[in-house]
Amino acid sequence: MKRSGIITVLTDFGISDPYVGVMKGVMLSINPDAKIVDITQNVRAGSILQAATFIHDTYRFFPEGTVHLAVVDPGVGSDRREICVEAGGHIFVGPDNGIFWHIIDGHKKKKVVQLTEKSFFLSDVSDTFHGRDIFAPVAAHLSKGAKSKSMGILIGDPVKLDFPKAQVDKDILRGQIIRTDNFGNLITNIHKSDVLSFLETREPIINIGNVEIRRLSDNYSNADSGEILALINSSDMLEIAVNMGRASEYVGLSNNEQIGMEITVGRCE
Amino acid sequence: MKRSGIITVLTDFGISDPYVGVMKGVMLSINPDAKIVDITQNVRAGSILQAATFIHDTYRFFPEGTVHLAVVDPGVGSDRREICVEAGGHIFVGPDNGIFWHIIDGHKKKKVVQLTEKSFFLSDVSDTFHGRDIFAPVAAHLSKGAKSKSMGILIGDPVKLDFPKAQVDKDILRGQIIRTDNFGNLITNIHKSDVLSFLETREPIINIGNVEIRRLSDNYSNADSGEILALINSSDMLEIAVNMGRASEYVGLSNNEQIGMEITVGRCE
Amino acid sequence: MKRSGIITVLTDFGISDPYVGVMKGVMLSINPDAKIVDITQNVRAGSILQAATFIHDTYRFFPEGTVHLAVVDPGVGSDRREICVEAGGHIFVGPDNGIFWHIIDGHKKKKVVQLTEKSFFLSDVSDTFHGRDIFAPVAAHLSKGAKSKSMGILIGDPVKLDFPKAQVDKDILRGQIIRTDNFGNLITNIHKSDVLSFLETREPIINIGNVEIRRLSDNYSNADSGEILALINSSDMLEIAVNMGRASEYVGLSNNEQIGMEITVGRCE
Repeated sequence: MKRSGIITVLTDFGISDPYVGVMKGVMLSINPDAKIVDITQNVRAGSILQAATFIHDTYRFFPEGTVHLAVVDPGVGSDRREICVEAGGHIFVGPDNGIFWHIIDGHKKKKVVQLTEKSFFLSDVSDTFHGRDIFAPVAAHLSKGAKSKSMGILIGDPVKLDFPKAQVDKDILRGQIIRTDNFGNLITNIHKSDVLSFLETREPIINIGNVEIRRLSDNYSNADSGEILALINSSDMLEIAVNMGRASEYVGLSNNEQIGMEITVGRCE
Repeated sequence: MKRSGIITVLTDFGISDPYVGVMKGVMLSINPDAKIVDITQNVRAGSILQAATFIHDTYRFFPEGTVHLAVVDPGVGSDRREICVEAGGHIFVGPDNGIFWHIIDGHKKKKVVQLTEKSFFLSDVSDTFHGRDIFAPVAAHLSKGAKSKSMGILIGDPVKLDFPKAQVDKDILRGQIIRTDNFGNLITNIHKSDVLSFLETREPIINIGNVEIRRLSDNYSNADSGEILALINSSDMLEIAVNMGRASEYVGLSNNEQIGMEITVGRCE
Repeated sequence: MKRSGIITVLTDFGISDPYVGVMKGVMLSINPDAKIVDITQNVRAGSILQAATFIHDTYRFFPEGTVHLAVVDPGVGSDRREICVEAGGHIFVGPDNGIFWHIIDGHKKKKVVQLTEKSFFLSDVSDTFHGRDIFAPVAAHLSKGAKSKSMGILIGDPVKLDFPKAQVDKDILRGQIIRTDNFGNLITNIHKSDVLSFLETREPIINIGNVEIRRLSDNYSNADSGEILALINSSDMLEIAVNMGRASEYVGLSNNEQIGMEITVGRCE
């Protein structure tokens, strides 16, 4: 695979600590020509689910041959493995804890390598910051053209992600809120294709908390100001929003309570 | 216009969602040599006024031929137009909702193009994320040298911004707080030139809330620690600050109440 | 010293205001090939101590010849000096207020230059934003190869930092919390070498607030979920953490109270 020279970075390190800056220094020391792009450093602390979703939603918008470094790693220093994954024309580097499961599960042709070759690591590897000592140097070497095969051993049993799936239960499509975004939009785990095959030509009856919504809008302006609406978002997922407002406040739950909240789609018969 | 190869990015998307990362991926896929610089992704959600102020305050510090991508776009998917603006040696790309009004209004020589040429967009354009599907690809093409003329049709009626202007009312110069910054400094809409022409050689009597300030300081240290002061800031606007403290707390109003709060300047006769 | 072409940026400006974006524009106007890397813009407002710690913890992970721009500058516009420092193969630019003291104090061979040569500044220098008007342009010129000697006069009395040091007091090693990170980990001013030489082969008795910890863990997983633990972190400092939790909440103090909180290490005799 040809390399784009780009390395994306996704972590739950936040941006107030210098941890991400240090990883960038390590990468530029190995590949001074690397182009480093932040995806986000604000993944919810330890949320493998959110990291996996973000990786899946973003990688395809980068040129083929991009290296995606992802460090959401609550098990750092334990016996969880370090891996890199080649699939879909991209390379992914991070802990083997499920964050790359959407990528691995979504591609027939793929390669998962356990990183064992220490010559690609920093010379001193701490027990608490593999982002700096293992993953950043490996990502930098990969972005320069090092082959993943040379970095360790192929494995066939990467850790799976237990992702909550939307399901049809008699005449109801059941899903849940998996994330609220910066605008207070509520993003569900119900994919456009689930909605379309469930509704066919019928109109929806969407219920979330005490709120009922009886149509799918095209965009955020497609409702009165302050009115709640449902739409298929730019990542092809069902989303609840309020025109010029925050759906997260509209449904009256705290940030933490929203994650996992049930949403159902019925059909107008 | 020669291109600098730089693209600046300003949005209200925040940095916890991967939206800005995705736009960068789109841009680097089109122009791998683009140098992308964040202005801020934390514009107050939907605040066209704040976006317009930030664009005006920053663009001139970049080399000529820089492309400034700005996506504060509460009307995405509605019939608001997409535009690019050439003025003052720079190019601006975003929604036609007033965010570029300071630029358009401030230059006699300018070109405003409605973006209609779909070959510069992503092949699928969503109704909810024009930042990714229209503005990012257009910005990338412009940064590589594509001509704005080739992207659509010249328009003469871009949307104006209703910016609150400072005004002299008898013996009082009246303005308002338009922003508080990271240090709790209160930034007004009163320009240095308004203050100087109003005061001439006289000393000011500045009132904000219950506070009165009777001189202009040169810098933040030009008062006792914890004391409130007024100065002309580095963007040439009247600003209220507290040495080693937060003026926003000093005047005793919440963040939301501060925006729009009246400030008056009188003269010692 | 050869230049790496990299400029790191550390400030307390936050990322909601466009101040850092403007500094990057200034630098790219002078050195279009500069590679600019954020360390953090979220240093606690005015905290010279935190800035000094971050600079010390990060610079060595960048290639030699990197320019480190640091603007935590509560005294901007006063008579505090502007300096650049060459030491350890790196160059540092910022106010002379102690932020570079760890660098200066830690190297026998060093050069501290007071920046007096105005031709390296922007043509108009404000009293309130030296980051933009002095430090950014100087950093950009240095990154292109300008010699620090040509920028001013060598000084021998840079401002020292009054850094709280861990101390042995009879049979107790006393230190304090100097920072909490994004994960709620409590980072102390007690260095690994202090701990090792104090304990020799004995086991520790670590006290913080009402909590006692009787061993050093290797990593965050090295305790039951929710259990508090102590370890030597990736910067070689003693750190208090909770496996899958937040030590900052565990010890029951607010963010502000944690800074400066005493921590003691005793010995099992």
